[in-house]
Amino acid sequence: MVKQDQKKLLKEFGVKIAEQVQRGKNPEIVLPLRNLSNIVYDKKSKTLKLGSKKGTRSFFNVAHAKKFLQTVEIASIVKRELIETGKHEHLRGVFYIAKRTIPGTNVNIVDDQVESDKIIEDLEVITGLSREQMHVSANKMGSMIGNITLIDSGDTIDCSRLGKGGYSVPSITDELEFKKIQAKYVLYMEKAAIFERLNEDKFWQKNNCILVTSQGQTTRGIRRLLQRLSEESDLPIYVLVDNDPWGWYIYSVVKYGSIALAHASERLTIPNVRLLGITCDDVNKYDLKKQLIKLNDQDTTRLKQISEYEWFKDNKEWQRQFKMMKEANGKVEIQALATRGISFISETYLPEKIRNKEFLD
Amino acid sequence: MVKQDQKKLLKEFGVKIAEQVQRGKNPEIVLPLRNLSNIVYDKKSKTLKLGSKKGTRSFFNVAHAKKFLQTVEIASIVKRELIETGKHEHLRGVFYIAKRTIPGTNVNIVDDQVESDKIIEDLEVITGLSREQMHVSANKMGSMIGNITLIDSGDTIDCSRLGKGGYSVPSITDELEFKKIQAKYVLYMEKAAIFERLNEDKFWQKNNCILVTSQGQTTRGIRRLLQRLSEESDLPIYVLVDNDPWGWYIYSVVKYGSIALAHASERLTIPNVRLLGITCDDVNKYDLKKQLIKLNDQDTTRLKQISEYEWFKDNKEWQRQFKMMKEANGKVEIQALATRGISFISETYLPEKIRNKEFLD
Repeated sequence: MVKQDQKKLLKEFGVKIAEQVQRGKNPEIVLPLRNLSNIVYDKKSKTLKLGSKKGTRSFFNVAHAKKFLQTVEIASIVKRELIETGKHEHLRGVFYIAKRTIPGTNVNIVDDQVESDKIIEDLEVITGLSREQMHVSANKMGSMIGNITLIDSGDTIDCSRLGKGGYSVPSITDELEFKKIQAKYVLYMEKAAIFERLNEDKFWQKNNCILVTSQGQTTRGIRRLLQRLSEESDLPIYVLVDNDPWGWYIYSVVKYGSIALAHASERLTIPNVRLLGITCDDVNKYDLKKQLIKLNDQDTTRLKQISEYEWFKDNKEWQRQFKMMKEANGKVEIQALATRGISFISETYLPEKIRNKEFLD
Repeated sequence: MVKQDQKKLLKEFGVKIAEQVQRGKNPEIVLPLRNLSNIVYDKKSKTLKLGSKKGTRSFFNVAHAKKFLQTVEIASIVKRELIETGKHEHLRGVFYIAKRTIPGTNVNIVDDQVESDKIIEDLEVITGLSREQMHVSANKMGSMIGNITLIDSGDTIDCSRLGKGGYSVPSITDELEFKKIQAKYVLYMEKAAIFERLNEDKFWQKNNCILVTSQGQTTRGIRRLLQRLSEESDLPIYVLVDNDPWGWYIYSVVKYGSIALAHASERLTIPNVRLLGITCDDVNKYDLKKQLIKLNDQDTTRLKQISEYEWFKDNKEWQRQFKMMKEANGKVEIQALATRGISFISETYLPEKIRNKEFLD
C-alpha cells in the first residue's frame, strides 16, 4: 500500500464528517462493534472475525461526544504527524501527542493511554488500515536468523551472517522486503533461550530454515512477519511452545486470531501454521514424564477454556491432547528436553519430528 | 580468557575437595558471604563489592550437605557439559540438567531454579569466573545500531546497515569482538520505543554514535556490552531513562552495581557512565510540567531509598534532583517529549543536552 492510499482513506473519514456538518446534520461515525457479542469464528477462513453488528458514535450525544472527539483528533494526528511526514510513533507517543487540554476547559482529550489505544483500534475498523499502516508501533520484541535476506529501510540484511545475536525484529514488519529466501520452513518458538540453543548448534544451517523468536506472547510485528513469510513465500511455519495451556494459547492466537484483535485477523492470522510441540505424546515418547510440573488452578481453568474454543471443539487430535494433559495433570517446558542432553533438541527431537511430519493442526 | 583457564579454575575447585577427602578430612567449601551484611560500597572503585566475611559449606553438616552437593554437581555440569563442549546453556536448562534424583533416594539435587541460580552465583565467587565465562546464559534482550562493526561467532556485522531492526544483542556479550568503531559515544536507553524513534530519525548517523536499548531493567549482557565499549574503546556512555525513581535506579545499577550482583561488579559496572536525562531541570526547561504524573506510594518509597544510597548521599547534584522530584511530587516519561513534536527528542533535546554537556554524574 502506498502512502497516498493511507492518506486517502483517512481523508475520506474526515470528509464524511465534514459533509454531515455542512448539511446541518448531527455528525456520526458508524463502526462495527468490537465487543464479545460481535465476534464470530468464521469457519470458511478459519479465523476470528467481527460480525455484522454496527454501532454509532454521534457528536451531539453526551455519552458519545468525548469518544467522537478522540476519534477525530487521533485520526488527524495519524494523518498529519505520521502519514504525511512518513514517520512512525509508538502507541505511548500517540497518547502524549493527543493528551492536550481542550482550550477554555480543564478537560484533556485523553487522560489514559488505554483510551488512545482503543481509538487506534477503532480507526483500524473504520478506515480498513492496520495500526501499522497508520505508522503506529508498539514495543519491539524478538529476533530472527537463518537463510533469508531482507531489505529493511534500504539496508540489505543477510540473516545468515548475524552471529549469535541475529536480526532484531522491528515493531512494524509490514515494510520489510524479502529479497532472497533459501529456507524450506520457519521455526517459530516462544523462548529466546531455545533460539540461542538452536543458533549455537547451527540448526538453521544444517536444516535450511529460518528461526524466529519472541519472548512469551507473540507481538503483532512477529505475527505479521510470520504471516508474510507464509503467504508471500509459501513457507511452512512450525510453532514450538511449552506443553502447557499458555503455550497452546500462543499457537491458537497465531493460527486463529484473538478476541481483542479479531478485527485485524486478516493481517495477522496464519491458517496454515502447525504445532510442532511440545505435545503430550512427546512427553511420553521422549521420556519427559519425570519433568512434569503439576498443573495449578489457573492452568486447569485455562486448559478447560481452550478446550472449549470453537476451533478446537470438534478437533479430535486436539481434544485428545487436552484430555491427556488433564489426566497427567502436568505440564512440561521446552527446556526440559535438556535433561536428555543439551543438544538433544537440535540433534534428535526437532529433526525427528519434522522428518516424520509429526504436527498438530 | 581462553577455554583452558576456565577449565583450570573449575578443576582447581574440584581438586581442593578431592584432596580434603583423600586426607580424610570433612570436605568444605569456603566462599565470601553474599548477604547484605557483607556488601560494601567501595569508595575507591566507586562500586558495590563483597566485603571480607567468609562462610563455610561443609559436607558432614546436615544444614550444609545439600548445598555442598549442589555446588559440586553444578560445577561438574559446567565443566563437563559447557566448557569442555564449548556450548552455552540458559539458567533454566542448567536447572533441568541438575534436576535429577539422587540414586537410591527420592530426593532431587535441585527442586527449583532458584536453587541452581544461587549456586551459579556462588560458583562465580568461588572460581572467579563470571556466569558468562561459565557459558551460562539468561534471557536475551535488547538491540544495538550505529557506527560499530563487530565480529560475532565469525560473522562480521556492520551495525550501521541493519535497517530499522538493528542487531539483536545476545545474552552473552563477552565473546563479541569490536572490529571497527567510528562512533564518538554510546547512548543507552531503557525504552525500545525511543530507540526506534531515534533510529528512524537517523540520529546515530547525524550524531555519529551507537544506540543501545533493552526493555526496562538492564540485562547482564547489555551491562557487559556497555562496560566493554567504555573500557576497551574508551567511549563515553550516556544513559537516557524516565524521570522517575525506577529510571534512576537503572542508572544507579549500571554505574555502581546492585546488591544481588555485588560479587560481579568488576565485570558489570561502568563508573564513567553519565545520566543524560530526563532530569528535573529538563522538566522545567523543556516545558514538560503539564506531563507530570503524580508519584504513587511505591514511587515515593523508592525515591527515599535511592536518595539514601551511600553513593548518592553526599552528591549535591543528585540530592538536588531528589528534592526537586519530591517537591514536584511528579514524574515524567521520556515519551512525554513527543508533546513537543515527534522528533523533538532527536532534533532538539538530545543534541542540546550533549552539546552543552548537561550530564549528571
